[in-house]
Amino acid sequence: MPQYRAPIRDFEFLLNEFLDVSQYKDLKGFDTIDQSLISSLIAEGGKFCQEVLFPLNQSGDDEGVKFDKGKVSVPKGFKEAYRSYVEAGWPSFTCDPEYGGQGLPEVINMPITEMICSANLSFGITPGLTHGAYNAIYKHASDDLKKKYLPQMVSGNWSGVMCLTEPQCGTDLGLIRTKAIPDGKNAYKISGSKIFISSGEQDITDNIIHLVLARLPDAPAGVKGISLFLVPKILVKDDGSLAKANNVKCGSIEHKMGIHGSPTCVMNYDEATGFLVGEVNKGLQAMFTMMNEARFYVGIQGLGLSEVSYQNAAIYAKDRLQGRALKGHKYPDKPADPLVVHPDVRRMLLTMRGFNEGARALACYTALQIDITKRHPDEKARQQADDFVQLITPIIKAYFTDAGFESTNLGMQIYGGHGYIKEWGMEQYTRDARIAQLYEGANGIQALDLVGRKLPKKTGKYLRSFFHPASKFIEKHKDNEKMAEFNKELYKALGVAQQASLWIAANGLGNPDEAAAGSVEYLRLMALVVMGYMWAQMAEVCIQKLDNNSSDMLFYQAKLDTAKFFMKKMLPYVYGLLASIVGGSKPVMAMKEEAF
Amino acid sequence: MPQYRAPIRDFEFLLNEFLDVSQYKDLKGFDTIDQSLISSLIAEGGKFCQEVLFPLNQSGDDEGVKFDKGKVSVPKGFKEAYRSYVEAGWPSFTCDPEYGGQGLPEVINMPITEMICSANLSFGITPGLTHGAYNAIYKHASDDLKKKYLPQMVSGNWSGVMCLTEPQCGTDLGLIRTKAIPDGKNAYKISGSKIFISSGEQDITDNIIHLVLARLPDAPAGVKGISLFLVPKILVKDDGSLAKANNVKCGSIEHKMGIHGSPTCVMNYDEATGFLVGEVNKGLQAMFTMMNEARFYVGIQGLGLSEVSYQNAAIYAKDRLQGRALKGHKYPDKPADPLVVHPDVRRMLLTMRGFNEGARALACYTALQIDITKRHPDEKARQQADDFVQLITPIIKAYFTDAGFESTNLGMQIYGGHGYIKEWGMEQYTRDARIAQLYEGANGIQALDLVGRKLPKKTGKYLRSFFHPASKFIEKHKDNEKMAEFNKELYKALGVAQQASLWIAANGLGNPDEAAAGSVEYLRLMALVVMGYMWAQMAEVCIQKLDNNSSDMLFYQAKLDTAKFFMKKMLPYVYGLLASIVGGSKPVMAMKEEAF
Repeated sequence: MPQYRAPIRDFEFLLNEFLDVSQYKDLKGFDTIDQSLISSLIAEGGKFCQEVLFPLNQSGDDEGVKFDKGKVSVPKGFKEAYRSYVEAGWPSFTCDPEYGGQGLPEVINMPITEMICSANLSFGITPGLTHGAYNAIYKHASDDLKKKYLPQMVSGNWSGVMCLTEPQCGTDLGLIRTKAIPDGKNAYKISGSKIFISSGEQDITDNIIHLVLARLPDAPAGVKGISLFLVPKILVKDDGSLAKANNVKCGSIEHKMGIHGSPTCVMNYDEATGFLVGEVNKGLQAMFTMMNEARFYVGIQGLGLSEVSYQNAAIYAKDRLQGRALKGHKYPDKPADPLVVHPDVRRMLLTMRGFNEGARALACYTALQIDITKRHPDEKARQQADDFVQLITPIIKAYFTDAGFESTNLGMQIYGGHGYIKEWGMEQYTRDARIAQLYEGANGIQALDLVGRKLPKKTGKYLRSFFHPASKFIEKHKDNEKMAEFNKELYKALGVAQQASLWIAANGLGNPDEAAAGSVEYLRLMALVVMGYMWAQMAEVCIQKLDNNSSDMLFYQAKLDTAKFFMKKMLPYVYGLLASIVGGSKPVMAMKEEAF
Repeated sequence: MPQYRAPIRDFEFLLNEFLDVSQYKDLKGFDTIDQSLISSLIAEGGKFCQEVLFPLNQSGDDEGVKFDKGKVSVPKGFKEAYRSYVEAGWPSFTCDPEYGGQGLPEVINMPITEMICSANLSFGITPGLTHGAYNAIYKHASDDLKKKYLPQMVSGNWSGVMCLTEPQCGTDLGLIRTKAIPDGKNAYKISGSKIFISSGEQDITDNIIHLVLARLPDAPAGVKGISLFLVPKILVKDDGSLAKANNVKCGSIEHKMGIHGSPTCVMNYDEATGFLVGEVNKGLQAMFTMMNEARFYVGIQGLGLSEVSYQNAAIYAKDRLQGRALKGHKYPDKPADPLVVHPDVRRMLLTMRGFNEGARALACYTALQIDITKRHPDEKARQQADDFVQLITPIIKAYFTDAGFESTNLGMQIYGGHGYIKEWGMEQYTRDARIAQLYEGANGIQALDLVGRKLPKKTGKYLRSFFHPASKFIEKHKDNEKMAEFNKELYKALGVAQQASLWIAANGLGNPDEAAAGSVEYLRLMALVVMGYMWAQMAEVCIQKLDNNSSDMLFYQAKLDTAKFFMKKMLPYVYGLLASIVGGSKPVMAMKEEAF
């Protein structure tokens, strides 16, 4: 039976020691935040994930969701778990108090999100999407719509879903055909079919609020003619109570590789009543303001699954006896040594851990920047934070989900043949992780966003939001002997990142194919270097703690050991990535289409 | 619906143009081989795979194998397909004519094997294992056993399976507990449980011959006390007819991530009658002579699945309209351009193809070397070929299955969200490919075999079986301008491989952890460079063909374009791998066990 323990200690390290979140008193809503509040919120969230969500993860995968004549039912236990989730107030965590939210920061929400993804990704998708829909409505809808719909979404009584994809269009939303006809009474009749709608229909909330992209009859072609509509599954009276059902029907659900506990629906709208959100023909912009945060949270899914896979792999590696250490028996009294004595098993565990803990640090750091963009009193500070968030979002979405998937595969590999058997639970993490590389913008799209939009922005201003502080950090420690082994590797890797950025910028300017052909390698290279910067900063904290003979030496020493592994064994992959990038676009574009 | 077309043209290129197999007249059994025989055998095999096996692949995955009170039934259609397979004579392809085989070379068998793996891996496992068991019996059993069992295995009427793993031991076979007690009548009573026995029980052959590793009562502990036994599911009379059932029972089957059409059995032997194969306590050596070839063929599984995934991804990329080429509309009359115009989609397709065609060349080249080890009249030539086969076997097993798995993931990625949906067929290739990294020696074990056994062997003699011809090739072309772009990249990469080999040899000598900690990176590095050598040689052939204005220019040009992609975009990963290797073992071994 797989296990999961919320990584409370690591979150406390990051929030209370690495970032010291409680120092940011000037951010709106941070005034009541202190270390003990942080610790207790995370502990409470961790307990819920361990005790309520995780026990349903494997059974949910086995049982899957069911579809019968338009009705969708979730696996056994999910409904009750969702009710507890709502009763504990988790849906309202970061929402605006005006609509019943608790107004808590993203930087504390990020750990809760990670733990939900570790414990039960299929469960987490419904509240995750609701939060995305909340954001879109909160930022773009009229006050009337906000007052009518948000409180129920904040409480979790109603859910929200995003409806973009159609059979003929995924990435290319310009091809959308769903129609919206004004009904002359301040509403619209929405008709069309959407596919891949996660939680589009389910039996756990009283209502489902669909955010649907559609075209008005006179809309211009392409992406400039798309508007966003709020389409409730059940119509809502002015007093907020439920009226009759809207013409929103689930036609079928998909059979998928993983996330079996999450319904992926074909949704049919047949003159369904919808309400405009934001301006006519500006639906895509409205969707995209929400998309950035959604992409950040999809990245966390990769991390969450990698974490639970790591934990089980580590338990197995310490327990399973097989073979002997290369330098002689380590446990001569046992029939064999545990797997963890073998260098390659350690390499796999440390690769997982180098990713997990580095990614967690970067996620917390970014969540704090997101808070600054929303809560800092100073416009310039908000802008600076936003530069970094813009730059890092595609990196987090694509790298966390790619590396997270690879990491779950390492977890399986450590189990040998048992990793392939369902009973052990490891292969589910791999199947579940695979989706995150595909949805919310496939990872190739993230890489294009990075090289095409983010890199050239304001002549490299977004890029400098990373390069400047990292260079300063290196400069600050240049005579610090204890930091030398981290600083030196980071310095070299940062140089590689600058070289790659210059190459992409210079060559992509005249020929966009040059930037696009190396975009995935460039994104991964940047991710490794940003992670290296996080690891170097964490190493700095740990060295101080160890120098001060703090308690919990095992924790700090392990963190420092992982930092060294990252610097020496993972970060050097940047050299191969750079060499591939400068190989250019010619070898990519030469092949004739008919030869494929 | 997924599609599969046997890559006949590429096999013809490799066997008739790249290797020119029909020139090897002095190899036993090669005298009747000519280009037209090769082409017709491959075409016939391809037709069978396309028309009989592939249509059962997706339905076999959906339905899976069934277990009921010790009986195992395979998915619908598998039994009939196996009967056609036997009737067409495929099982006897490479077997010794003395036992009813056709004595055909491995180099022609390799294409058949690849096509079976592409078309239906679950189906292919039973005959694949039978061939492995045939090899073990053929090389190690007494003439009596050979005469009694081999003809029926060669015909395919009976199957053979390998029974190594027990619950407490996978990699570490020294821990085997299954017992063999002499019955005083030239046979043994075998008792114990084996797990993960592929095709251990099924309903498609009249008998199943189990090769079981077990211990005699007085056997020394560990691997030196293991003997190999032939244990038939149904006992065989002296006249070859079937007698009563042996005490061999299937206790249950596993529920797995993939290969759902292949039963993975728990097998219980309760004083089952078994016959010694080879010498007492030398069972492991007997098993390992067979293992080398089995590992080669598991490598081919990775290639086969990558090929079918590529084909479908290429079809989809040319068909699916989404977005526009970065330099402007390529198909202005269509609502969008096909995916294949996008640089990153091309990168994914070419990465798959760079692997597939390079791996296929290496597999054919290696199969020919295997033929030389068995059929060449000259001892020295046999020995030289064996040096290369020894070196390359762990590389093929691990790299082909790792890169094959990654490639099937790229195939899924090209489909976007549709890749995750079962109906499209792409996710099955990924799930099926995942097992090949685990069985027949997990890939970490292959890497240890490479650095621990193969690299130091005869002070680098195995290694020189690759480095020498590759260096000679580079030297030969050093003034050839048309070859410069291939030769230069190969020269640099070969230098990196030599550097890495020296580092591993020098540092591993004093500290085996240094070799083991970088073994997986070293294996991958070597694989890329060996593939680079194959690509450079193929480029040489294609340049000649294009210079001579041969027909089929599209084929040669596409091959040359893929060669350039491999050299410029895939091979450069060696730089990152080298940098990680020289990071050494310290960062891998430092972490305390309890800190994991």
